Amino acid sequence: MATGGLFDGVLAAGPVAELVSDRAWVQAMLDFEAALAAASAASGVIPAEAATAIEKCCRAEIYDIAALGADAVRIGNPAGPLVRALTARVEPAAAAYVHLGATSQDVIDTAAMLLSARALAALRTDLHVCATRLAQLAEEHAGTATVGRSLLQQALPVTFGLTAAGWLGGVIAALDRIDLVRRERLAVQFGGAVGTLAALRGNGIPVLSELARRLELAEPSLAWHTERSRIAEVAGVLGQTCGAVAKIARDITLLAQTEIAEVREQGPPGSGGSSTMPHKQNPVAAVLAAGSAAQGPGLVADLLAAGGHEHQRAAGAWHAEWRPLTELLRSAGSAVHWLRVCLERLQVDPVRMRDNLESTGGLLVVENVAIELVSVAGGAVGRQEATDVVAACCLRASSGDLAELLAADSTIGKFLNRNRIEELLDPASYLGSAAEFVRRALRDWQSRL
Amino acid sequence: MATGGLFDGVLAAGPVAELVSDRAWVQAMLDFEAALAAASAASGVIPAEAATAIEKCCRAEIYDIAALGADAVRIGNPAGPLVRALTARVEPAAAAYVHLGATSQDVIDTAAMLLSARALAALRTDLHVCATRLAQLAEEHAGTATVGRSLLQQALPVTFGLTAAGWLGGVIAALDRIDLVRRERLAVQFGGAVGTLAALRGNGIPVLSELARRLELAEPSLAWHTERSRIAEVAGVLGQTCGAVAKIARDITLLAQTEIAEVREQGPPGSGGSSTMPHKQNPVAAVLAAGSAAQGPGLVADLLAAGGHEHQRAAGAWHAEWRPLTELLRSAGSAVHWLRVCLERLQVDPVRMRDNLESTGGLLVVENVAIELVSVAGGAVGRQEATDVVAACCLRASSGDLAELLAADSTIGKFLNRNRIEELLDPASYLGSAAEFVRRALRDWQSRL
Amino acid sequence: MATGGLFDGVLAAGPVAELVSDRAWVQAMLDFEAALAAASAASGVIPAEAATAIEKCCRAEIYDIAALGADAVRIGNPAGPLVRALTARVEPAAAAYVHLGATSQDVIDTAAMLLSARALAALRTDLHVCATRLAQLAEEHAGTATVGRSLLQQALPVTFGLTAAGWLGGVIAALDRIDLVRRERLAVQFGGAVGTLAALRGNGIPVLSELARRLELAEPSLAWHTERSRIAEVAGVLGQTCGAVAKIARDITLLAQTEIAEVREQGPPGSGGSSTMPHKQNPVAAVLAAGSAAQGPGLVADLLAAGGHEHQRAAGAWHAEWRPLTELLRSAGSAVHWLRVCLERLQVDPVRMRDNLESTGGLLVVENVAIELVSVAGGAVGRQEATDVVAACCLRASSGDLAELLAADSTIGKFLNRNRIEELLDPASYLGSAAEFVRRALRDWQSRL
Amino acid sequence: MATGGLFDGVLAAGPVAELVSDRAWVQAMLDFEAALAAASAASGVIPAEAATAIEKCCRAEIYDIAALGADAVRIGNPAGPLVRALTARVEPAAAAYVHLGATSQDVIDTAAMLLSARALAALRTDLHVCATRLAQLAEEHAGTATVGRSLLQQALPVTFGLTAAGWLGGVIAALDRIDLVRRERLAVQFGGAVGTLAALRGNGIPVLSELARRLELAEPSLAWHTERSRIAEVAGVLGQTCGAVAKIARDITLLAQTEIAEVREQGPPGSGGSSTMPHKQNPVAAVLAAGSAAQGPGLVADLLAAGGHEHQRAAGAWHAEWRPLTELLRSAGSAVHWLRVCLERLQVDPVRMRDNLESTGGLLVVENVAIELVSVAGGAVGRQEATDVVAACCLRASSGDLAELLAADSTIGKFLNRNRIEELLDPASYLGSAAEFVRRALRDWQSRL
Repeated sequence: MATGGLFDGVLAAGPVAELVSDRAWVQAMLDFEAALAAASAASGVIPAEAATAIEKCCRAEIYDIAALGADAVRIGNPAGPLVRALTARVEPAAAAYVHLGATSQDVIDTAAMLLSARALAALRTDLHVCATRLAQLAEEHAGTATVGRSLLQQALPVTFGLTAAGWLGGVIAALDRIDLVRRERLAVQFGGAVGTLAALRGNGIPVLSELARRLELAEPSLAWHTERSRIAEVAGVLGQTCGAVAKIARDITLLAQTEIAEVREQGPPGSGGSSTMPHKQNPVAAVLAAGSAAQGPGLVADLLAAGGHEHQRAAGAWHAEWRPLTELLRSAGSAVHWLRVCLERLQVDPVRMRDNLESTGGLLVVENVAIELVSVAGGAVGRQEATDVVAACCLRASSGDLAELLAADSTIGKFLNRNRIEELLDPASYLGSAAEFVRRALRDWQSRL
Repeated sequence: MATGGLFDGVLAAGPVAELVSDRAWVQAMLDFEAALAAASAASGVIPAEAATAIEKCCRAEIYDIAALGADAVRIGNPAGPLVRALTARVEPAAAAYVHLGATSQDVIDTAAMLLSARALAALRTDLHVCATRLAQLAEEHAGTATVGRSLLQQALPVTFGLTAAGWLGGVIAALDRIDLVRRERLAVQFGGAVGTLAALRGNGIPVLSELARRLELAEPSLAWHTERSRIAEVAGVLGQTCGAVAKIARDITLLAQTEIAEVREQGPPGSGGSSTMPHKQNPVAAVLAAGSAAQGPGLVADLLAAGGHEHQRAAGAWHAEWRPLTELLRSAGSAVHWLRVCLERLQVDPVRMRDNLESTGGLLVVENVAIELVSVAGGAVGRQEATDVVAACCLRASSGDLAELLAADSTIGKFLNRNRIEELLDPASYLGSAAEFVRRALRDWQSRL
Repeated sequence: MATGGLFDGVLAAGPVAELVSDRAWVQAMLDFEAALAAASAASGVIPAEAATAIEKCCRAEIYDIAALGADAVRIGNPAGPLVRALTARVEPAAAAYVHLGATSQDVIDTAAMLLSARALAALRTDLHVCATRLAQLAEEHAGTATVGRSLLQQALPVTFGLTAAGWLGGVIAALDRIDLVRRERLAVQFGGAVGTLAALRGNGIPVLSELARRLELAEPSLAWHTERSRIAEVAGVLGQTCGAVAKIARDITLLAQTEIAEVREQGPPGSGGSSTMPHKQNPVAAVLAAGSAAQGPGLVADLLAAGGHEHQRAAGAWHAEWRPLTELLRSAGSAVHWLRVCLERLQVDPVRMRDNLESTGGLLVVENVAIELVSVAGGAVGRQEATDVVAACCLRASSGDLAELLAADSTIGKFLNRNRIEELLDPASYLGSAAEFVRRALRDWQSRL
Repeated sequence: MATGGLFDGVLAAGPVAELVSDRAWVQAMLDFEAALAAASAASGVIPAEAATAIEKCCRAEIYDIAALGADAVRIGNPAGPLVRALTARVEPAAAAYVHLGATSQDVIDTAAMLLSARALAALRTDLHVCATRLAQLAEEHAGTATVGRSLLQQALPVTFGLTAAGWLGGVIAALDRIDLVRRERLAVQFGGAVGTLAALRGNGIPVLSELARRLELAEPSLAWHTERSRIAEVAGVLGQTCGAVAKIARDITLLAQTEIAEVREQGPPGSGGSSTMPHKQNPVAAVLAAGSAAQGPGLVADLLAAGGHEHQRAAGAWHAEWRPLTELLRSAGSAVHWLRVCLERLQVDPVRMRDNLESTGGLLVVENVAIELVSVAGGAVGRQEATDVVAACCLRASSGDLAELLAADSTIGKFLNRNRIEELLDPASYLGSAAEFVRRALRDWQSRL
């Protein structure tokens, strides 16, 4: 799971990958051991000098990851080998105080929480940049009329600002949930072999409290070694984040289609080009955001399915979490990072938006005519009838000017003249509450700053 | 998706199934239409009498579900047919005001939120009963020593109260998250065809606010028709809930094994019996809790994978949510309900627990001897050496009394006599902070009441 | 899980839904009991008259599904209640011979295989129609040039026939795998409580053989009650089928976009229309095919995750299969059915395809110029240089005619004149082996007929 | 994705990990380029010396994986950078012939097939060893009576040979499917940018054929770049394999429980020990097999969900496959490898099996008494009555000898005397067709050798 891998540039982009590398795992495990020693010393369980001696050896770079990994097969996890290696390194007088009272699962579970905390912090930073950019797009394009599409068909006008505000909504929700999980659910795990801290006799809880304080993780009421809802919540929030990215990335790849061309990614030279098709400008950041985000659902499923841990240590379900959790953090981090890059590169083309909006000659806005017809007819024309007469004109629209056809209709013409119809066919006249919705979304965002 | 189905007794148990039935879906859709009419009247958009007329027809029992379902193929969702059927039923003067300003997705998405709200409320009630029972078990058995097991092997003593407190932790976490989602994330969806509420012209937002108020759902800043993090969060919390149930159910089926027999389900006559094996007492409620909970991960994955909705209405991803969301609510409801039944039936056997604890003749507690040895030896015996000499005695334990063997060891015997060793081999003397952890867990629970 | 449900028209379309209904489950369970009685009689285990009496009562319509479902809670599955109900119905002399030697799991597992066989047969028929239509489209449009797109950007010309042939490839692969699973892996399950057929003493295997013969299922070497690879293979092939549908449906919704409009669904009046947007023609069948197919991955995951059955009967994993298997058969059936409908409705617009192909003024085919340049330059121009000079012209293409710009380039102009360049810019001249690939795909298909 | 990682010893065990490493990916990509050059030379498309020059540079060890990975961000995949690096390395005269006619997806998709072929071959070897060992266990223990358990409760006697034969069934099914996929579905991908091989003009298909022959992959009828059923099938067979492993591993961890102890893993010194609990002998290989296998379902779901590739190259779904495919090959390989280790270490304890069988004093076999009673009573006692009277005795069994109680029952005693009852209560007399089922399973296996 090293960074610098063949697919890491594209699918493990951004700052998170480094924070969940094997090296990062080892460091987090050592951070646990160092903090445990310090906490034990603070609680009078071990001598202060022993803690100092242990802390000195808790630097990941002095351990051989491949050797730890290979040695892990004996007991089935890499914490045992790391503890042995650490014990061998500290000065003899301190050796007996390494890992005191702890079990392998304490080390790995707490390390998983530290990794999650660090990865979520970095991911959050990228996601915040995305939100800022989306808020800017929403504000800037609050009045930029463009085509709203349902089922991939042109439907009614929207503004590009409203689209961006909708995207922002998903990002805000992800940020909110990330913050909650970081604050409340990332907790130290410390229980010893079966969650009683028996080896520490009466001193277990003071050491637990101090350990949590030092690692800046929450202090749980009791050990959660086989109660995995913390993992489930980390998984859930990452799955949600991937979904928010997937929505935006999908829209951008669709809007960037050659035939639509309402947005494009303008990356550094060489980005998004095709080696053999010089005319192409691929939205490569959006594509990689989508590709990274797509890893989410299955990894979340694997983590949730591993929830049924047996008794005081699971016979496989625990081991089943390490890879998907790491991979999910990395993939979500990559997805968010590529989204950030994509949004930084994003060029919006309001002229093209307007062209697409007008390409059907007003068909997109005929609903406005039907509604006005009902409104001005004062009960003489029902909603269904209005829809029907307008629809009938639309069916003939390919053979002539739509405004003309509508004005010439006997029912419509009785209440609306051609000038009024042309006003009604202007997309800008049929944007409803789009502007107000954008304002509300921006207020939402600003209230969080 | 009707209740009363062949597998519904076992896999759609409890109150939730009825609340997510097709009938419940139709009622929730009609609740939207009724509330929309009322909200529109309150905002002056439609006449008050029209709203009254519409509300009168918003009773699910007067509609033919099979006909709605069959008719849905024309536009691809059942909201259109329902709106047509409703329109046909209301008196002519009100017909034009049905569904005004809304689109199919508004109806179905809001109905999904209403269903979720109702299902989560019922599920929460069952889950709360589980928590209460678990708290009671934790308290009652805070001093009941039993075997702690890791990797399905006997490891060290715990108390059954600690086990129950651990189970309680997962239930509390699920309750917390359910409450958060219900309070903050279950929101009305109302945006019209593309999220602008254009058909309502300037009146959209007041109607939205009033609609939310009447349906007791949150009012979103803007339409979320293609920003699906609300669905993702409902999915996430249900997945987490299934995980909490799975853990407990798994432990109970394991503890109820014939060879372990520390707990059993004592159901009504006939429950859990085998038609051909009269001696069996199957933990059928735990089994069905596990079976129901196991539906969770894949359904969550499907809902997360459907997150990338296109533009202003998805071409398939929206439709892909209806079944898994319904199924997930139902399955999680069933899982929680069976857990409740299981816990109500649960009989705990402290004598058997003690027997199992002693079945290895003290091996489970030898760690206590090693630790005491280090402690009293005042530096003369290191942790590793203590572990080694104790382990050596254990290897010979099958050929004699363990206390005797330990006392006879030259290193151990120097510091600990046989009486002290026997004290140390009493499981009750090696429970660490189990009692305090139980107290902390109970405080956690009580603080929520 | 009844048909006729609110979402069944859209997400449980086609013949499969009826074949996996609760009624169908009960009938399949009764088919097992009837065949078991007949096989037992044929093997001399029970009297022939008893078998006849039992067979007479094996009609699903005489049983109350809701009652069976409700009664299932006692032992945790609906087979027990059904056997009791059947026993109560047969004449007293035959009652003792009902279900002889069998266990609940035999009934339900064999019923699952029968359901799978029937559902796959129906699904296969629909899928075969799809293949036939795709083969026809591939043949008919083998020469219809159109835009090939990568990353949703116009790339190079293809033919629509090649696109259809590619779609056909996925359908053929699914058909092949369905046939294999039906032939080899759908097997009767018959082992009694623990797979020994102990209750039948020495007669077990003859009854098993005869049972398999009568049900037209494979005869397994031994009971597979807790070896679930048959379920895994059914799941796998359905997941694969959903994927093949998803690919085609996605392409069709993309090709049907208003701005691309190369295909459209022409359904019966009212299909695909929007109630409020009369100008839209939604590809509703493709949308519902996509929506149905999207249920696949998570359901497959749940079925695979349930693979680890405990011992001789699983404590939850077995129960966890019933709903996802049923739902997966139904969803895949619906996906395939909607694909069939979509392909029957599909209108192809070669003129629009040609227009889109030419919309970039030849940019799509410039690779042809670069390749010809390398070819005719006889080593004087390398591949990279050729690509570069052509790319440079493309960048200026917006300001003029591309053929002109290319001809005017000093490097290109040396080897290719304007006429030759125009020939090279004709999409039809740059279709490579498209026609031959179509022929190969059609041969593949025809070889299976 | 390097081997030698922190969790690789435990979760990426065995020969597969190396075969799917980044280095292996690069080599497979280079194998494609080398074979393409050779095939092009053989078809007269490029000079033979160019092919030789290219082949010489197709050794993975001369490329910098981290640099390739980093450079991949420009076009979104690592094939482009590798082609550039290769081109830079070959002598100038050959440079123009590198990668001729191919696109990035050809390289990566074909490499994915080569990796799958190599990984499946290695996995198959390990799986074959498992099958051999299981067949041996089945044969050796065909007569070893032991407890059959349903819902984790003791049920009826089986033989351990039957259990092993059932395990073997799942392994054989996986082997069969692996062989099918390797033979029929692992195909070369070669289509150029959009699947037409346009850049090769008329020479595309001969090069394709030769390429397939050289790489020992199947030759597809047409390019399958966006028709992903081959990936789906690889995923499906790996998911199935993980399920077969999960079943066996779960059973073994359950059978190895301290309280059951019917099997144990006897590994090399230090394996399965606990650092702090010297008495434990953890079934660590089974645990890691389970942990590795549990990665399967979610990864399969992600691969299936990625099936809906857009047009001629997917905007994210393609990229979404690389990690889960690699991870799934590695995890399944690890699962199978740990299963092999587990089975090699497995010690079976027939004495303990017999003890457990007798621990309920005959309750497990009372069904035999009921059946005999019906049989000898000649119609005087029905099946239900027999079951009832036997069950009544069982309920009193804790207060006395079961045979005695049964013989004393007025109904039973009329037809069966105590001696006969004791014979009937011997587990060995109630094994049904277990021995024959084992023989059939072994014949199945031998027929494949």
